[in-house]
Amino acid sequence: MSFGGKVLTIFHLDNSRSERIIWLAEELGLAYELQTFARENRAAPAALLDIHPIGTAPLLRDGARVIMESGAIVEYLVNCHGQGRLMEPVMSPHYIDYLQWLHFAEGTALSAMSRAFGMRMLLGAECPAVQNAMVRQQRTLQVVERELAVRPYFAGPRFTAADIMMEYYFTALERASMVDLHTYEHTTRWIAMVRSRPAYQRMMAVAAPTAAL
Amino acid sequence: MSFGGKVLTIFHLDNSRSERIIWLAEELGLAYELQTFARENRAAPAALLDIHPIGTAPLLRDGARVIMESGAIVEYLVNCHGQGRLMEPVMSPHYIDYLQWLHFAEGTALSAMSRAFGMRMLLGAECPAVQNAMVRQQRTLQVVERELAVRPYFAGPRFTAADIMMEYYFTALERASMVDLHTYEHTTRWIAMVRSRPAYQRMMAVAAPTAAL
Repeated sequence: MSFGGKVLTIFHLDNSRSERIIWLAEELGLAYELQTFARENRAAPAALLDIHPIGTAPLLRDGARVIMESGAIVEYLVNCHGQGRLMEPVMSPHYIDYLQWLHFAEGTALSAMSRAFGMRMLLGAECPAVQNAMVRQQRTLQVVERELAVRPYFAGPRFTAADIMMEYYFTALERASMVDLHTYEHTTRWIAMVRSRPAYQRMMAVAAPTAAL
Repeated sequence: MSFGGKVLTIFHLDNSRSERIIWLAEELGLAYELQTFARENRAAPAALLDIHPIGTAPLLRDGARVIMESGAIVEYLVNCHGQGRLMEPVMSPHYIDYLQWLHFAEGTALSAMSRAFGMRMLLGAECPAVQNAMVRQQRTLQVVERELAVRPYFAGPRFTAADIMMEYYFTALERASMVDLHTYEHTTRWIAMVRSRPAYQRMMAVAAPTAAL
């Protein structure tokens, strides 16, 4: 198969977590083809089902293989295309932090955010169950704030793929107008720092959202 | 610090995903101390906040360090205590499958299940939004069924930690009475196979749920 000489194809859904994969590819300087899909009625379009039966983004094609799931694609890219960059190896003193936040981004943070957002759309912000979900968000944000008060990046002294995984949590909170982050001083410092990276800005130049969630 | 000669402590919340960590420790033959917490009003008790500010389970203490997040704990245990067992290394032809399902369990499957379950509790099973969430569950189950029709385990020919991550998705669906799985022939074959493992049964002997969700 030929994709204009590029082995990697990133299938990007507008206004979604697949922004991470483009950002990571830009950080690593990987050549990739970008295929962007618009949302239909806010959801992923049926055309994504032609790429992979899960029908969501991100999806990454590497040669003949299509890989799903943000965390898996990120680990795959750093471990198989990254030549040791943007990750912490098993023997590193920062390995546990790297692993924790790499998984926490979806496993806890965005999972709880998605649940709260879905409930708020259906029940309104005044509903007690929605307010309980917001309290849980606040605990997550406090844990993050505490972490970023004592280290510049999630895995320690260096920017890693764990930061890319975590950044989309804040993007999602902001785009859904879920939380005012400005009282979280260290978190907002970290957000500004990672978004000022040239690779993030190259990602936004090709993948800035065209429609609201 | 001494924990009866054991370096590892697993903090287990009754009827929760921390069952995975006990199961994995049993598979790997690791010595561990088990501390079990009962739920209070269905949620994690405040006592877990004394272990880690996230206040949820699973949590794993290894020496002086407490690690959160199922996927991170599982990757940590296999990579740092597993001596190459129950994982697929980067050069393995099964590495991509291993990674995908290791992350998919929380990132897609349980995230969507938790959202649907929360909505159903608040709105009832007849609500159209709940029924839409159930349709998304079915797509997830169909993708899994298709996968398990062509390979015995999620990562291919061998049982791995990806199976342990995925099994709790079905446990959660069953305990929440979300889906009748019996039409998913390959999935139910896989469930029976992994739950028949001696290490799973040793886990259930010490961690079977004592209260409903």
